[in-house]
Amino acid sequence: MKSHISVITLGVADLKKSTDFYENLGFPVERSQDITFIKVSKNMRMALYGLDDMVKESGVSTNTGDFSGITLAHNVISKEQVDSVIEEARLKDVEIIDEPQERHWGGYSGYFKDIDGYLWEVAYNPFSPEIAVDEDEL
Amino acid sequence: MKSHISVITLGVADLKKSTDFYENLGFPVERSQDITFIKVSKNMRMALYGLDDMVKESGVSTNTGDFSGITLAHNVISKEQVDSVIEEARLKDVEIIDEPQERHWGGYSGYFKDIDGYLWEVAYNPFSPEIAVDEDEL
Repeated sequence: MKSHISVITLGVADLKKSTDFYENLGFPVERSQDITFIKVSKNMRMALYGLDDMVKESGVSTNTGDFSGITLAHNVISKEQVDSVIEEARLKDVEIIDEPQERHWGGYSGYFKDIDGYLWEVAYNPFSPEIAVDEDEL
Repeated sequence: MKSHISVITLGVADLKKSTDFYENLGFPVERSQDITFIKVSKNMRMALYGLDDMVKESGVSTNTGDFSGITLAHNVISKEQVDSVIEEARLKDVEIIDEPQERHWGGYSGYFKDIDGYLWEVAYNPFSPEIAVDEDEL
């Protein structure tokens, strides 16, 4: 797994209010119906997304209070690379909490947790090639 | 405030175990006594740092359960720029939770919270100029 974060997503209570907050700070917000993207580096974005939707998608439990509210996304260039990164993590005894699958937003992803409970999404997003890494590139 | 994340810090229970976890995944870890840095982009690092130390430094309360365990750092090129970014945030009614001050690690920083409670550190770190932005640059 290459060392790159493509998106850091903050789970928010009210998307409009949180987007307004960052816009007011001077950040270039790109609003859409259910997610806001903010460019924070050439090949990295911050996203604001409803906390409820994040929980629903990843299947992570918030009952135990161990979900930070944040996910780190590692984007790759194909569905096959999502599968192989998740398999590589599984072979290393990493806890896979949601198997790779098609997502309602048009991409394909799986989730794992680090040992402190922080959530990583390994994703193929056909709409954002500029923030993906090619795992097969030498 | 320019739109850039310099460091995303994950508060961890056991620095060695968490560092081993990411090294095992294939990430290039740079260990030092009380912090681990991982390069995740040309001008961005992920850091692993003791959760207790993070809480102590920022003064954030974990009693209410509202600290995610993660801080987002926005690094600038001088102490004066730390002060001016924090002042700019304060004028915009952002909650400053720790005023700019010298830090034991040799830098200077202040902290604010976004409206969902996520913590931002505005920092001058003389040891990491490569991940800082110049707020005065046009």
